Amino acid sequence: MEKRQFIKVNPADNVGIVIIPEGIKAGTKLSDSVTAVEHVPHGHKVALKDFSKNEEIIRYGEVIGYAREDIPKGSWISEDKVQLPEPPHLEELPIATKVPDPLPPLEGYTFLGYRNSDGTVGTKNLLGIMTSVQCVEGVVNIAVERIKRELLPKYPNVDGVVPINHHYGCGVAIDAPEAKVPKRILKNLATHPNFGGELLLVGLGCEKLVPEKYFPDVKKENTVILQSELGFELMVDSIVSKARQCLERLDKRVREVCPVSDLVVGVQCGGSDAFSGITANPAVGYAADLLVRAGATVLFSEVTEVRDGVHHLTARAINQEVGQKLIDEMAWYDNYLELGGVDRDANPTPGNKAGGLANVVEKSLGSIAKSGSSAIVDVLSPGEKVRKKGLIFAATPASDFVCGTCQLASGITLQVFTTGRGTPYGLSMVPVIKVASNSELTKKWKNLIDVDAGKIATGDATIEDVGWEIFRLILEIASGNKKAWADYWRIENALCLFNPAPIT
Amino acid sequence: MEKRQFIKVNPADNVGIVIIPEGIKAGTKLSDSVTAVEHVPHGHKVALKDFSKNEEIIRYGEVIGYAREDIPKGSWISEDKVQLPEPPHLEELPIATKVPDPLPPLEGYTFLGYRNSDGTVGTKNLLGIMTSVQCVEGVVNIAVERIKRELLPKYPNVDGVVPINHHYGCGVAIDAPEAKVPKRILKNLATHPNFGGELLLVGLGCEKLVPEKYFPDVKKENTVILQSELGFELMVDSIVSKARQCLERLDKRVREVCPVSDLVVGVQCGGSDAFSGITANPAVGYAADLLVRAGATVLFSEVTEVRDGVHHLTARAINQEVGQKLIDEMAWYDNYLELGGVDRDANPTPGNKAGGLANVVEKSLGSIAKSGSSAIVDVLSPGEKVRKKGLIFAATPASDFVCGTCQLASGITLQVFTTGRGTPYGLSMVPVIKVASNSELTKKWKNLIDVDAGKIATGDATIEDVGWEIFRLILEIASGNKKAWADYWRIENALCLFNPAPIT
Repeated sequence: MEKRQFIKVNPADNVGIVIIPEGIKAGTKLSDSVTAVEHVPHGHKVALKDFSKNEEIIRYGEVIGYAREDIPKGSWISEDKVQLPEPPHLEELPIATKVPDPLPPLEGYTFLGYRNSDGTVGTKNLLGIMTSVQCVEGVVNIAVERIKRELLPKYPNVDGVVPINHHYGCGVAIDAPEAKVPKRILKNLATHPNFGGELLLVGLGCEKLVPEKYFPDVKKENTVILQSELGFELMVDSIVSKARQCLERLDKRVREVCPVSDLVVGVQCGGSDAFSGITANPAVGYAADLLVRAGATVLFSEVTEVRDGVHHLTARAINQEVGQKLIDEMAWYDNYLELGGVDRDANPTPGNKAGGLANVVEKSLGSIAKSGSSAIVDVLSPGEKVRKKGLIFAATPASDFVCGTCQLASGITLQVFTTGRGTPYGLSMVPVIKVASNSELTKKWKNLIDVDAGKIATGDATIEDVGWEIFRLILEIASGNKKAWADYWRIENALCLFNPAPIT
Repeated sequence: MEKRQFIKVNPADNVGIVIIPEGIKAGTKLSDSVTAVEHVPHGHKVALKDFSKNEEIIRYGEVIGYAREDIPKGSWISEDKVQLPEPPHLEELPIATKVPDPLPPLEGYTFLGYRNSDGTVGTKNLLGIMTSVQCVEGVVNIAVERIKRELLPKYPNVDGVVPINHHYGCGVAIDAPEAKVPKRILKNLATHPNFGGELLLVGLGCEKLVPEKYFPDVKKENTVILQSELGFELMVDSIVSKARQCLERLDKRVREVCPVSDLVVGVQCGGSDAFSGITANPAVGYAADLLVRAGATVLFSEVTEVRDGVHHLTARAINQEVGQKLIDEMAWYDNYLELGGVDRDANPTPGNKAGGLANVVEKSLGSIAKSGSSAIVDVLSPGEKVRKKGLIFAATPASDFVCGTCQLASGITLQVFTTGRGTPYGLSMVPVIKVASNSELTKKWKNLIDVDAGKIATGDATIEDVGWEIFRLILEIASGNKKAWADYWRIENALCLFNPAPIT
C-alpha cells in the first residue's frame, strides 16, 4: 500500500491535510478521484472536490470559511482563498443542550504532592518572592541571586527560588473598573499551592498596590518594605534574612501520596500548526478526560481561540448558569477587542498561517480539542481561583504567557502545552509538559519536547496511546520523579500580567 | 532668629509648606498673624488665612483646588479638604503666547562620549540583546548569564550586557491602530546610541513581530532565530557565538571629547512629595536650562503630571504647530483614560498624598518645574526619536518605568530622576542620577541618592547651586569618570513597554 499522503479529520470534510513532510508535488495521485494540481505544503489543506466561489470549506465537520474564488479539486487552499465566516452570535447559542454524561470513574492512580494547610496540594516546593511594585525589582533580583548562591544549597528540600516580578503596582489606574483583573491575579498568585503559604513580599512603601490591603493572605512577617531600610545593602540583607526564615519552614515540607483529584492541570497551546488540532490537542483532550475521570481539575482557556467554536462549548455547559458565564466572558472580550479597534481574527500569527492554519475558525476548532469530551462544570474570569473539580473554562487571553499567568493565579500546579512550530516555553512556578504536534519538531528539539504526538499523524500511535502517555507523565512529573525539559534546563520566562485597565 | 518652619513658593500663595521634619505642633506661632491650630505634618500645607467654603487654595501662584469646607487659619489643609478643579479645557489654551527668549549660550563644557556612525553619541558601551517575542526570554536569560561569565571579562572596553526583554511580539493585536506605539518603541530601542549599532536580536520564528519587518535597522548577521536551531544547547551556543562577534566590534569603541550639544538628557520624577516641586524639580529645571544653553537636548514627559498645568506649556511652545501637537497628545491621553473609565486624578499615589500632595494639580505644578524656563521646541509621541536640540516634551505615561522606556526609545543617553519618598530606580541602558527632594531621604539612603536637593528647603543651598551641581555631575557621569549609585550597585529593572492596544 502507498504511504498515506493526507488525512481527513471528519468524514464530512471536503479538504485533506497534507502529512508528507516535504509536501505533495503537482501531479501526485491522492486518491482514485483526486490528483494534486499544484504543490501543497506540509500541514496545509488540499481541495478534495471542485469548489465554486462562496462554497463552504469544511474541516472538523465544521464550516471554517467560504471559497473566495472557484477552487479546482487538487488545489492548495491557501489562507488568501478562504473567506472568514461570521462568529457565532452570542444571543443565539445553545446552552446545556448536549451535556455529556459523566465519564466512568478512573481509580487506582495517585501522585506524590505537598499538602498545604488550606487543602491545596503542590507539585513543587518553592520560595516565591513577589514584588508589590516594579520599582523594587532591581533590588529583588540582586537579593534573589544571593539567596540562590548562599542559601538555597543549604535547604535541599526546596526546589528553587522564583521571583514574581511584574509591571503593576504603581503608575496604574488602580480604581479603574477593569483593574480588578491584575489585582486579582497578583493576590491569587501569592497563595499558589507551590509556595506553601510562605510567599515573601517585597514592597516599596509609597506604591498604589498597598501590601496589607491587596495581599491579605501574605504573612506580615514575610513582608519587606524598602523605604523602611537604611540604604541599598540593608535592603538586600533584609530580603535575604527573611528568605532564610521562609526557607527554614519550607524545607520541612514533605511529599505524601495524594489522589489524582488533588491535581489542578492547565492545558494550553502556542505556536500551533495544522497538526495541532489532529494530534497534540486531541491527545491532550484524551488525557484531560482521564484526569476528569480520576477526579482532578482541568482548566482550558484562551478566549480568542475558542470564540469561533463557542457554540460547541455552551452546549457542553453543565447548566444554564455556567453557559451564561461562558457567554459573558466571550462578550467581555469581544468588547475589549472592539474598543481597541480589532476583532478576533487579530489572533493567528504568521507562524500559524505558515503552518497551515488559514484563520481563527480553523485554529479554534483545533484548539477546543484540548478540552476533551466532558461537561464544563464552571467558568472562571481571568485569574479567579478554582472552586470545583472537573473540566473548567478559565477565560484568559490566548497570549502564551498571559494565559499561563492567569492559569497559575487560578491555581494550576502543572501545565500541558502543545506546540507545532515549537516554543521553548517554561513557567518556573509549575512543571510544563510540552507536546509536539509533529514528529519533525520532536526530532529537531529532542531536548525540549517531552511528548511526541506527531506519531498519531503517521499512524504509529493512536490518540488514546498518546493520551495515556501524557496522563502517566503528568503523574510522574507532578510527583517529582522526573523533570520536564523546561525544568531540566531551568528555562524561566517572566510572568506576564493581564491588565485591561489604563496606566497613568 | 527662629528657625524657618514653613515656606511659600510664590508671594501669591495662601498656604505654606511645613519644612520641619517632625511637623508643626498645635499652638506653634508661625508668623505675627498665624498660629497653628492643630498638628501639621512635614511637607503638608498649613492655611495662612481663613478660608470660606469654595474659596481658592493657591500654591505656586496657581489654584490647586477649592476649600470643601470653612478652614480656619493655622489649620492643616489635608487632602480631603481640597476640591479638585476642572482641568484646563484643551480648546481654549494659549499657544505660543509666552515664548521665552533664547537663553544666553553656555560655552566651554564638554564630555567624553562614544560617537556612532549615525551621528549620535553614547554614554555607555553596551551589548544590547533584544527579544522579538517573549517566548525566547528564558533561553536568552541563560545565554546572557553565560556571556557575562565567560565572555565579558575578555572585553574590558564593554561596560555590560543588557537584555531587553518585553511582553510584546505575539499574542497581541499587532495591526490595531494603537499598536504603533509598542512597535515604534521597540524599533527605536534597537538603535539606542549606547548599543553602538551592534544590537543582537533573538527571535523565535513564528511570532507576529517579524524581525526583518519590524527591526529594519538590526544587522542581519546579528539575528538569531531559535526555531532554526537544533535544540536547547545549540540555541544558547548560537546566541553566545553571535554575542562574541558583537563584543569584538564593540570593544574597539573609544570615548572622545564631545560638545555638550551631543547629550540627550531625560528628566523624570517618581515617588514625589510636597518638596519635589520646591527643591529637586526646580534644581533639575535649572540644570535643564544649563543643558539647553550648552546646545543639548532635554526631554521632559509624563502626560498625566503636566495635564493640569498644560496652559503654562502651550504658552511656552515655540510655535503654533508645536503647541497643537502638545494639545493633541493631551487629548489622546484624556481619551485613553476615559475609555478605561478613569480620569487624570488616578495619578497620585498613597505615597504622594502621605507626602503632602493633595491632588494631581498640585503634583503637576511641581512636576513642570523640571522643564526649566526655555521654549518648548518639539513634542514627541511615546517613543518617537528626538529630531531637534533644545527642550522637548516627550509624551509618555507617568509610570516610572514606562516613561523611562519611552525616553530611552526617544534616545536619551542619561536620565535625571527626582524623588521625595525614595525609589531604588535604575535603567541599565543609561546612567540615572537620583536627586532627593529632602535631606532626610538623602541621609537614609546615602548610597542610593546622588544629589541632595533638600538643602534648598533648609536654606543651605540655592536652586542655582544645586542646578550647577547636577549639571557638572551629568558631565562627569556621561564621561564614565564617575558612576551613579544605581550603576554602582548594578540595579537593573526590566523595561516596561507601553501598549495601549489590546492583546489577543
